[in-house]
Amino acid sequence: MLYGKACVCQYDGTAYSGWQRQKNGISIQERLEFALKEIYGRFIKIAGSGRTDAGVHSLGQVFSFKSEICRPNSALIYGVNAFLPEDIAVIDALDVTLDFHAGKSLKSKTYLYKIINQSLPAPLHVNRAWWIKKHIDVDLLNEFLAKFEGVHDFESFCVRKTKKENTIRKINFIKVGRVGNEVHIEINASGFLHNMVRIMVGTAINGLIKGLKPTTITEIINKKDRRFAGVTAPAGGLYQKETFYSLNSASGLEGIPARFRP
Amino acid sequence: MLYGKACVCQYDGTAYSGWQRQKNGISIQERLEFALKEIYGRFIKIAGSGRTDAGVHSLGQVFSFKSEICRPNSALIYGVNAFLPEDIAVIDALDVTLDFHAGKSLKSKTYLYKIINQSLPAPLHVNRAWWIKKHIDVDLLNEFLAKFEGVHDFESFCVRKTKKENTIRKINFIKVGRVGNEVHIEINASGFLHNMVRIMVGTAINGLIKGLKPTTITEIINKKDRRFAGVTAPAGGLYQKETFYSLNSASGLEGIPARFRP
Repeated sequence: MLYGKACVCQYDGTAYSGWQRQKNGISIQERLEFALKEIYGRFIKIAGSGRTDAGVHSLGQVFSFKSEICRPNSALIYGVNAFLPEDIAVIDALDVTLDFHAGKSLKSKTYLYKIINQSLPAPLHVNRAWWIKKHIDVDLLNEFLAKFEGVHDFESFCVRKTKKENTIRKINFIKVGRVGNEVHIEINASGFLHNMVRIMVGTAINGLIKGLKPTTITEIINKKDRRFAGVTAPAGGLYQKETFYSLNSASGLEGIPARFRP
Repeated sequence: MLYGKACVCQYDGTAYSGWQRQKNGISIQERLEFALKEIYGRFIKIAGSGRTDAGVHSLGQVFSFKSEICRPNSALIYGVNAFLPEDIAVIDALDVTLDFHAGKSLKSKTYLYKIINQSLPAPLHVNRAWWIKKHIDVDLLNEFLAKFEGVHDFESFCVRKTKKENTIRKINFIKVGRVGNEVHIEINASGFLHNMVRIMVGTAINGLIKGLKPTTITEIINKKDRRFAGVTAPAGGLYQKETFYSLNSASGLEGIPARFRP
């Protein structure tokens, strides 16, 4: 008999080549699969809610897997963490039905982008936030970013994997707020293209600093050409914050903590 | 003619062997002196307000130096930061009279110790806070730490440099507070012994977790023996927070920002 599990994990992505297992570098997935092998006594392949790039962090990455052995959730959390490095941790585990897949069952996810906004450098925010010297008018930044909401072709705001890739996505909401010297941007969508959040943030900040109008964003969207968008904001400012799944009785997610519900 | 300067710097100490220049490892002092050499065109020896150990951070380390060339403070800050790695930054510079010495003119300094207090591991707090699983009663922790206030012989709470070293110190104040899942401890004194803050914090947390009484601290002070105190709390949770100097017209410190005044 097979048992389904979903786990929520957090990580500091600074030291890793990203979520996905790869030949040239150590990935978060590889570290987690290594720890699970110690607990289950055999290789366990995990499926993430999505990939994060090298240097990108997570506050709530969800991954799922199936196993012939059923471990109690508390023992699973404790055991896996014992075999993980300090900068990766499983913070929740739950039983799911076998049709649940952390990637395919995803309803939406929220990315958080952190900017440290002060004239002086911020040594204690290195690899954790993007340092922007010029004062950011949060209301104006919100006007720039609001242009992304809804359904658009994001060809100007991604690194395409293939020429045929569909680059249309729907942004459900974008929130911008200031916390002291930090500016926090939250972007929720059912799916993101490669580097999409970082290019969106980089382009909005570029426009703001150069004194352009928020409508510039719409113009760049219509160009459908990456060359018209701004810089790719640094990976260290990006956090995969929350992952939401449909509450479907078949998926066994009734038990999912309130914070992971849509 | 010689000109006196005092600078305030911040750093993430994770990658360094501590403040003081040494043979086996890269120090903060070495990095700063390297950057100053680029700006002044000659070697400049700096004096810090005190040493910090490997892995210890600073939010307001002050260092002073003398030079035959006078650089404007804004140019000094900008220039030095251009030659510093991202995890070290000068955040203020001011002119001081030649009798000012960041170490010898010191009135008092405040260390901040950060604890992340939650049952689950905290990957994004690694090297920045000490992870304590068991819930900390902040009022009770304050009762433990309050026993350190005033003048005591801190022989039980230090790593002695020499047998003859005077281990009597005066703790001016200790503040304990909770910020969400973090417990912050601030300790102010005119001088500290080697590892003193970390052993004080480690001993108080040990006592709290083991269910001992706050008076245990007084008993350990009276033992005058390091073996009776608790663990040395990890370096990554310690921040040199603020440095205070006497407002003496002779020292030219009238211009020191309000946040560095006693």
